[in-house]
Amino acid sequence: MNYADRLHASIAHCGNACLVGLDPHLELLPPEFADVRDTSRPRAERARRLAQFCCEVIELVAGKVPAVKPQSAFFEVLGADGVAAWEDVVRAAHAAGLLVIGDVKRGDIATTAAAYATAFLEGTCKEDADSLCDAVTLNPFLGADSIEPFLDACSRTGKGLYILVRTSNKGSADFQRHGSPELSHVVADKVVSWGSKLVGAGGWSSVGAVVGATHGAELCDFRRRMPRTPFLLPGYGAQGASARDVLGAFELGSSGAPCGALVNSSRGITFAWREKAYAGKHWKDATCAALDHMVREINGALLTTR
Amino acid sequence: MNYADRLHASIAHCGNACLVGLDPHLELLPPEFADVRDTSRPRAERARRLAQFCCEVIELVAGKVPAVKPQSAFFEVLGADGVAAWEDVVRAAHAAGLLVIGDVKRGDIATTAAAYATAFLEGTCKEDADSLCDAVTLNPFLGADSIEPFLDACSRTGKGLYILVRTSNKGSADFQRHGSPELSHVVADKVVSWGSKLVGAGGWSSVGAVVGATHGAELCDFRRRMPRTPFLLPGYGAQGASARDVLGAFELGSSGAPCGALVNSSRGITFAWREKAYAGKHWKDATCAALDHMVREINGALLTTR
Repeated sequence: MNYADRLHASIAHCGNACLVGLDPHLELLPPEFADVRDTSRPRAERARRLAQFCCEVIELVAGKVPAVKPQSAFFEVLGADGVAAWEDVVRAAHAAGLLVIGDVKRGDIATTAAAYATAFLEGTCKEDADSLCDAVTLNPFLGADSIEPFLDACSRTGKGLYILVRTSNKGSADFQRHGSPELSHVVADKVVSWGSKLVGAGGWSSVGAVVGATHGAELCDFRRRMPRTPFLLPGYGAQGASARDVLGAFELGSSGAPCGALVNSSRGITFAWREKAYAGKHWKDATCAALDHMVREINGALLTTR
Repeated sequence: MNYADRLHASIAHCGNACLVGLDPHLELLPPEFADVRDTSRPRAERARRLAQFCCEVIELVAGKVPAVKPQSAFFEVLGADGVAAWEDVVRAAHAAGLLVIGDVKRGDIATTAAAYATAFLEGTCKEDADSLCDAVTLNPFLGADSIEPFLDACSRTGKGLYILVRTSNKGSADFQRHGSPELSHVVADKVVSWGSKLVGAGGWSSVGAVVGATHGAELCDFRRRMPRTPFLLPGYGAQGASARDVLGAFELGSSGAPCGALVNSSRGITFAWREKAYAGKHWKDATCAALDHMVREINGALLTTR
């Protein structure tokens, strides 16, 4: 089944398009996971505890959101043990019925790109099956031949991609806005063309785009440019974008469920306990409250557009 | 000690600027390593054999070249076990006196980029010390704030970076040549500015650039634009660039040793046994012969420019 169709089924089932980013930054983990920071302990033990934190987050959000997005850097920081933790976390997310978007931002040429596609989408053996992602983020800087092996993997497996088009950070303007038309528009047009052969029953492509929610009106421009491309929207919450800022990315499906985008929040959810608004709460209560707030806020904003 | 200084000391010691890329593509490994492709075997065992192949290559090239460049994709393809193999290979390369350039092409924002810098350059504990890289390749698409955490890591550790400026593949023109001035020139200017605070005793920066050797006269333009930037030159051999094509990247140091660049060959060396020129040879003999040929060819071309 086509990734976009699975994504929309999952959004409709949960009644929201919120994506929980799993960025288990060692320094930000709750006090009860302080042992992850204790470098005198064996790295494998620290990695197991890192996985445990993520698995507890998964338990809290399972059934409430369509997908989670683990960020590979925060696992790789613990080397091979961290990558084993990544695999445990991906398995736990699948077991909890969540789609998994691997935020790996890989980008390389020819057979190297094919190896990354195998690593994250296809696997080499049965052992891998449960620790693969449903979709991954990709960096397009190396051009079409760096994306094609992933498109092939998606045709074979029904998985999805999110190509970086315009990221949410301040520095994204340095190169992504270069030229006239600006580079991000050129990439956006390519995303549409790459995705044209991977369109699902619902009319959406499995080739998505990462478009920061922090750039105001640009989001509506990108939606016009990529009308059938699922968006992954970073920037909500901690990075400053509001529920109103993400509206331009959405359509309402026939069932009334939001279509065409996922709004990501990472530390705004998993590290909500560090925020003033949730001071004094246990981290799990803070996480649940922050997620409830996000769902209400975004669904509320979507309702006003009907 | 500054990365560029260490690099040049190592080039002078070996008498050449050849870089052996370790791309252990499962499908291309010699028959005696066919068990790596046997997906009925435990993944951990296959990964150990993958590491063994790379360690045997390292034994063959140690003392002959200044550095090796493992490509992370071909390790990640075996998941956490593959990353454990990566760490074994990096350790073996250090033990053999080789510099290690991790070809990871990572690129992400803020604390995520900092986590990647920790993962590959700094580590979180003593266990990591021997499996860290001397330098890594980076993708600049996300802009300055995606590079800065790596610059900070380099100031603290004396390590180095190679930023993708103009890659060797055909698709590199899709986005890297976009705009006027073309994007690769804008990135090149940024590379110079990012590297300006990390200049070693020899006058070269620790912030290098990846510039494909496959684009003819462009290489000399890039050298003028980035006069004190170490280049990593992919594209020699299998991808079609010749020894003459790489000359524009080099200067000759006071000792007569080549300065300012490394010429990479990956499958041209490690999979030389598959080439007609080495038909019938054992893979180790083919690898040694191909490396000797490369060293002679590039040093020969450099001699003609004196």
